[in-house]
Amino acid sequence: MSKEYNVCVVGIGAVGAEMIRLLKKRKFPVKSLTILARSERVEEIDGEPYQVKVAEPDAFEGMDIAFFAGTEGSKGASQTLGWEAVKRGCIVIDNGDDFRMDDRVPLVIPEINPEALDNHPGFIASPNCSTIIALMPLAALHKKAGLRRVIASTYQAVSGTGSAAVVELEDQIRAWVAGQPLVNEVYPKQIAFNLIPQIGSEKEPGFPSEEIKMQRETHKILGDDSIRICSTCVRVPVFNSHSVSINAEFKEPMSPEEARDILSKAPGVKVVDDLAHGHFPTPIETSGREDVSVGRIRKDPALDNGLAMFVSGDNIWKGAALNTIQIAEELIKRG
Amino acid sequence: MSKEYNVCVVGIGAVGAEMIRLLKKRKFPVKSLTILARSERVEEIDGEPYQVKVAEPDAFEGMDIAFFAGTEGSKGASQTLGWEAVKRGCIVIDNGDDFRMDDRVPLVIPEINPEALDNHPGFIASPNCSTIIALMPLAALHKKAGLRRVIASTYQAVSGTGSAAVVELEDQIRAWVAGQPLVNEVYPKQIAFNLIPQIGSEKEPGFPSEEIKMQRETHKILGDDSIRICSTCVRVPVFNSHSVSINAEFKEPMSPEEARDILSKAPGVKVVDDLAHGHFPTPIETSGREDVSVGRIRKDPALDNGLAMFVSGDNIWKGAALNTIQIAEELIKRG
Repeated sequence: MSKEYNVCVVGIGAVGAEMIRLLKKRKFPVKSLTILARSERVEEIDGEPYQVKVAEPDAFEGMDIAFFAGTEGSKGASQTLGWEAVKRGCIVIDNGDDFRMDDRVPLVIPEINPEALDNHPGFIASPNCSTIIALMPLAALHKKAGLRRVIASTYQAVSGTGSAAVVELEDQIRAWVAGQPLVNEVYPKQIAFNLIPQIGSEKEPGFPSEEIKMQRETHKILGDDSIRICSTCVRVPVFNSHSVSINAEFKEPMSPEEARDILSKAPGVKVVDDLAHGHFPTPIETSGREDVSVGRIRKDPALDNGLAMFVSGDNIWKGAALNTIQIAEELIKRG
Repeated sequence: MSKEYNVCVVGIGAVGAEMIRLLKKRKFPVKSLTILARSERVEEIDGEPYQVKVAEPDAFEGMDIAFFAGTEGSKGASQTLGWEAVKRGCIVIDNGDDFRMDDRVPLVIPEINPEALDNHPGFIASPNCSTIIALMPLAALHKKAGLRRVIASTYQAVSGTGSAAVVELEDQIRAWVAGQPLVNEVYPKQIAFNLIPQIGSEKEPGFPSEEIKMQRETHKILGDDSIRICSTCVRVPVFNSHSVSINAEFKEPMSPEEARDILSKAPGVKVVDDLAHGHFPTPIETSGREDVSVGRIRKDPALDNGLAMFVSGDNIWKGAALNTIQIAEELIKRG
């Protein structure tokens, strides 16, 4: 690879726009930046106009790295164009979920399993947002004490569904203040002042797709299918940053103090944990931060060698756009 | 006891007002209704004026039943006046948390442990709101298969904190729409579009009081201290109805179908569980309902004989006011 890269971003929704912002913020070595989407147009990001070209196979000619923004739920452009880009010598880093469980494709969180990049086929997948946020602290503890079980309940922000969902929550809030009826189109029910305990359609009996993703992707990333995982994924009326209440059982004993020590040294993790002084992670405070915050760390009386904790992180950044860019940075580092 | 009763309600905040509404709604045999609070005044409920008298020991002379509305967090009037009322021949039913763990005082959910009323000292406590809502389905399953572990993460409405918290969320929402700064006084952080994973002050290292209540009160109500319980209690920007994501391990195997069958016959419990058609409990839909809804019932792959489920119920009704009135109704029934 050369020292500067022809980069393209495919898709320009909530995640695509943040990819563009983060490439700039992190001073990614960009030679040229091309934006691809379904239709040709000009899009403005932070007051700057970007020419959007049509995403088609030949658009990847001469490209070094393509970041596919993907979309949770609907099939991403990576399904039709991903391998076409690879064929043309471009490395694809896909935020979407089409190829995460594909045996050929590494599923990578750079702080956790960078070695999975050793033999990539030109196509690398970035995990599900809730999975990344939960694993940032869990993987560091797993390395030390070995995870046996994980029970997680999520509190997921509307930005994870996409820009239309953010607008839906905003509109419902405005309608509530104006005393007008609250309309829902993106979500099956009102999200303002409500909870929706189903994320994705039913994938296995009783389990929506998001909960299956957290289970399978964790197994793949940690390389250990024996970890017993159950998650309940719930949409909450929060704009940005997913939070996860986690109960974890380890093979070896681990005290809260030891866990705090390990986590305070884990890259990309910030310990925010002082209950007596009201310090714990909240989505408002983790939104727009690169690291994932963890707090409420305590002994879990319901599990052997158990720890309970509360985690929060920006689902559009570390849960999506940032992780894809960190994957590219790791690839460059590894040469 | 006679066929009609001299009833008083002590405290007239969110819970006290609902006690008055529910006494009427459920046609409780009221001979006279007296409202007691800190100061003498007239309060209007649903357009009807109520004379509020000063709560003092002699105010309980001639009373048959006193419902103490209590307040989560601050010490309730039951602490100073409860036993004074009992001394005067009045039965006290206390929604507050001052005497719940007192060995003399039964802690009762009428559908679950009515037998605890057999030998009461004139003073009966109603449990914590999250505990009641989680136990309504859990106790029915426990009876059949024996609970071994409970891991719960809550999604608690602001009404549980009291009327001032409801106003705080409303005010923050209005400020957000008006583009003005969001002010917080009741909560330590902004609650609109946010989560606060600490309910109550630190009671034991790492555990706020709400989480300890869920543990100890469950042990007392089910009469089984061996059940291993861990809860994480989180305040969410929802006006009313608490929800709980529960993972439970039983001594005996229980299939989701069997659990649904048991729960559909459990008094006060409503099964709302059809993922394929988007049927699950939500706080908007359980607010203002007397029963507690349960759905998302599925096998928990992380626990042996495990079930996961999502529960939602009106914290001011079944979680507080309604349960106290049901306790009185049960006392009358038992004669």
